[in-house]
Amino acid sequence: MVTITRRENFNAAHRLFRPEWSDDKNMEVFGKCSNPNWHGHNYTLYVTVKGEIDRNTGFVVNLKKLSEIIKTYVIDKVDHKNLNTEVDFMKDKLVSTENIAVAIWDVLESPIRELNASLFRIKLVETENNYAEYFGEK
Amino acid sequence: MVTITRRENFNAAHRLFRPEWSDDKNMEVFGKCSNPNWHGHNYTLYVTVKGEIDRNTGFVVNLKKLSEIIKTYVIDKVDHKNLNTEVDFMKDKLVSTENIAVAIWDVLESPIRELNASLFRIKLVETENNYAEYFGEK
Amino acid sequence: MVTITRRENFNAAHRLFRPEWSDDKNMEVFGKCSNPNWHGHNYTLYVTVKGEIDRNTGFVVNLKKLSEIIKTYVIDKVDHKNLNTEVDFMKDKLVSTENIAVAIWDVLESPIRELNASLFRIKLVETENNYAEYFGEK
Amino acid sequence: MVTITRRENFNAAHRLFRPEWSDDKNMEVFGKCSNPNWHGHNYTLYVTVKGEIDRNTGFVVNLKKLSEIIKTYVIDKVDHKNLNTEVDFMKDKLVSTENIAVAIWDVLESPIRELNASLFRIKLVETENNYAEYFGEK
Amino acid sequence: MVTITRRENFNAAHRLFRPEWSDDKNMEVFGKCSNPNWHGHNYTLYVTVKGEIDRNTGFVVNLKKLSEIIKTYVIDKVDHKNLNTEVDFMKDKLVSTENIAVAIWDVLESPIRELNASLFRIKLVETENNYAEYFGEK
Amino acid sequence: MVTITRRENFNAAHRLFRPEWSDDKNMEVFGKCSNPNWHGHNYTLYVTVKGEIDRNTGFVVNLKKLSEIIKTYVIDKVDHKNLNTEVDFMKDKLVSTENIAVAIWDVLESPIRELNASLFRIKLVETENNYAEYFGEK
Repeated sequence: MVTITRRENFNAAHRLFRPEWSDDKNMEVFGKCSNPNWHGHNYTLYVTVKGEIDRNTGFVVNLKKLSEIIKTYVIDKVDHKNLNTEVDFMKDKLVSTENIAVAIWDVLESPIRELNASLFRIKLVETENNYAEYFGEK
Repeated sequence: MVTITRRENFNAAHRLFRPEWSDDKNMEVFGKCSNPNWHGHNYTLYVTVKGEIDRNTGFVVNLKKLSEIIKTYVIDKVDHKNLNTEVDFMKDKLVSTENIAVAIWDVLESPIRELNASLFRIKLVETENNYAEYFGEK
Repeated sequence: MVTITRRENFNAAHRLFRPEWSDDKNMEVFGKCSNPNWHGHNYTLYVTVKGEIDRNTGFVVNLKKLSEIIKTYVIDKVDHKNLNTEVDFMKDKLVSTENIAVAIWDVLESPIRELNASLFRIKLVETENNYAEYFGEK
Repeated sequence: MVTITRRENFNAAHRLFRPEWSDDKNMEVFGKCSNPNWHGHNYTLYVTVKGEIDRNTGFVVNLKKLSEIIKTYVIDKVDHKNLNTEVDFMKDKLVSTENIAVAIWDVLESPIRELNASLFRIKLVETENNYAEYFGEK
Repeated sequence: MVTITRRENFNAAHRLFRPEWSDDKNMEVFGKCSNPNWHGHNYTLYVTVKGEIDRNTGFVVNLKKLSEIIKTYVIDKVDHKNLNTEVDFMKDKLVSTENIAVAIWDVLESPIRELNASLFRIKLVETENNYAEYFGEK
Repeated sequence: MVTITRRENFNAAHRLFRPEWSDDKNMEVFGKCSNPNWHGHNYTLYVTVKGEIDRNTGFVVNLKKLSEIIKTYVIDKVDHKNLNTEVDFMKDKLVSTENIAVAIWDVLESPIRELNASLFRIKLVETENNYAEYFGEK
C-alpha cells in the first residue's frame, strides 16, 4: 500500500458548548474552551490518500489537484472563519477536533474518489499537544 | 551578555479592523483577517530576559518565577480569549501581531525588573509564516 | 475509526546496560548509551486513544481527563527522574525506548478504559532521530 | 506490535519528466517540477521496523546497526546526488516521492530481515507539505 | 524597535565549485557539495523588516505586500530552479548560503524601502543544521 | 555583517544543586531539577560565527571545519555524559543552561579564531520551552 499526504493550514475561531446546557454546565465540561467570546487556533490538516502508483506519472495522485480539492472543499470554507457559525459542513455539530476531522472526511471522500484514489486518513492538529485522526467507517 | 528565553503558548480569537472604516475599506486593507465573525491562532510567545548570572543559582533569572510572571500578566488574560474584546491591555488597540508584542512588553517590563533582570526581547509568533519582535524603545 | 492523541513531555536520566554483563560487553552492545554516570533525554510521549465520538461532547475522550491520567500514572513518576532507579514500572527492565513504551501502555491501558475509550497507540520519541510505537498485544 | 523508527536525511537534486513526452506535456502534468535544469530537496526518511523485543537488549533492532544499513544501502547512494541520473535503484523510474519510497523499501527489506526484524513502513518527506508512505505489498 | 518577519520557502538545485579549480581541488574544499550533477535543498527564507508601527493599520508593514515583493523579486526566480545557472542575481557568484543571503538582501532592500520600512535581516536556512544571516553593511 | 550558524545535538544527564546547601534549600531553589539521581535532556547547540565572506569559497567559515571543532571541543566531551561529574569545562560550576552556554563559548572562542572568523553567539536549547544565548563579554 502506498499513500501520499498533503498538508494544508487554516486559522479559525471556535468554541465548544451545547446551547441547551447552562453556562455552568458548559464550563464544567468544556472549561475555557467554552468561552462565549470565542478563541481560535492554527489548525494543520493532513489529508492522506492511498492508491496504486500511476505508471505514467509516478503519482498515487497529482498533489496539485489534491491541493486544489482540499482548498475548494475545505480551506476556502474554514480559513479565517468562525467554525461554529460560518461553515456549512459544521452546522449543528459540536466543533470538537474529532467532529471537524470526520466532517472534513465526509466532504473530501467523494471528490478524491474522482482522482482515482481513495481517502485513507484525515489528521487534524489543533495544538502541538493534541490531534484527531479519522480513517472512515471501518 | 547572557539571555534566557522562556516560551509560552496561548490560543485566542481576534480580527483586524478599524471601527471608523467601512467594511470595504477594512477588507481592502486587512483582507480575510477582518472577518467580523473572528478567526484565531495558536500564538507562541518567547520572552527573553538579560542580566548577570547569579553566582548562587547559575541563573540570569529563575525560569519558574519568570513563567509565573508571564502566566499572571499575560497568559491568564489572553488564553482562550477574544483579544479584541476581553483583554485589558489591548483595549482600543488594533490587534496586530506587532501591537500585541509591544503591549506584552509593556505589561512584563516592570515585574521582570523586580527579578533583578531586564526584559530584552518579546517575540510573538502568529503563524509559522510570520512573527513580530520588539526590543523596547531604543 | 476516530482517534485522539495527547502529547506530554518529560525529561529523564537513564542508561542502557545489563548488570550481569561486563563493562566491555555492555559497551560493545550499547555503546555510549551504557555510560555508568548516566545521560538523559527530553522524551516526548504521544498517547492515542480510539473510540466512538460522544454525542454530548463531540469527544472520543475528554482531553483534560486524559491528560490528568497520563500525568498521574506516567509523567509524575518519570519527569526529572532516573528511569533506571526511581520508576516502579521500569523496575528490573532494560530502559530502552521500546521497553518504556510498552511499560507506559501497561500502566495506562486500564485507567483509559474507565474513560469509555481504548488505548490505541503509545509513541515515545527519544530523540529527533528515533522513536518507538506500541499498539498492544495483537 | 512494537516498532522502532530511525530518521535519516539526504539532500538531492531531481526532476519529474517523461523523456517520451514533449516539454509542453511534461510542463502540463508536472509543472515546475519538470524544470530541465533540476531542482532539489532536503528529504527526510523515516524507516520503521517491527518485531519482538529482544530480552537481552530491550531492542526490536539495534539502532546503530539499522542506521548503518540505511546509510550503506540508501544515504550513501542518494545524498548530494542527482536522483535521476546517479542512483542505481531509481534507474528508469519516474523520480516521484512515491516511487523513491517504494524503491527504498525494496533495497532495505532484505538487509533488515538479517537483523531478525521486518520492515514495516517507509515514510519519505519531500517538503513540509507532502510525504509518501509505503507499507510493502499487502 | 519593532520588527516583523515573513517566512517563504523555495526548493532549488545547486552545487559549490569554482570553474577555474580542478575537480580534485573542488572536492577537497567543497566535498560532496561540489557534485557536478547537482544536489538540492528545501530552503527556508526569513525576511525581517523593521520600522515604526503605522497607527492606521497596526503594521510595521503589510505582510501581504511584503510577501508579494518577496515572491516577485526572489521566490519566482529561485523556486524549482537551478541556483547556479538560472538565477540572474547569483550570476558569477559561488552559490553558498552566505552569498545567496547577501544577494537576496540586495534585491529586496530597495523595494522594501518603498513600503516605508527598512530591511533588517535576511535569514536563509539551508538544512536543519545550518543557516546564514545577513544584516546589511554595517 | 554576515553570520553562519551550525547546529549540533547532545544528550546528557545533569542536576542543579549546591553542595553546601541542604536538600531542602536545593529543592526550594531548584525544584525537581535538583533530583539527586539526575535527570537529562536532548540539548541543541547553535554556534554562530561572523566574519567576511571568503571570495574563494563563498564561506564565512567552512562548516565542515566548524563542525569538527565543535565536535572535538564540545560534543565529544558532553554527549551521553554526566555534565556535573564528567565534563572538564563544567568542573565546580552550577550546571545551568546559562553556565553551560558561557562555558561552551569559552572553549570555542580560540579555535574558531584560528578559522579567521569570530564567535558571535552560543545558543543552547535545553527544552522546547527554554534556551540561553551568550554573546561574549561586551
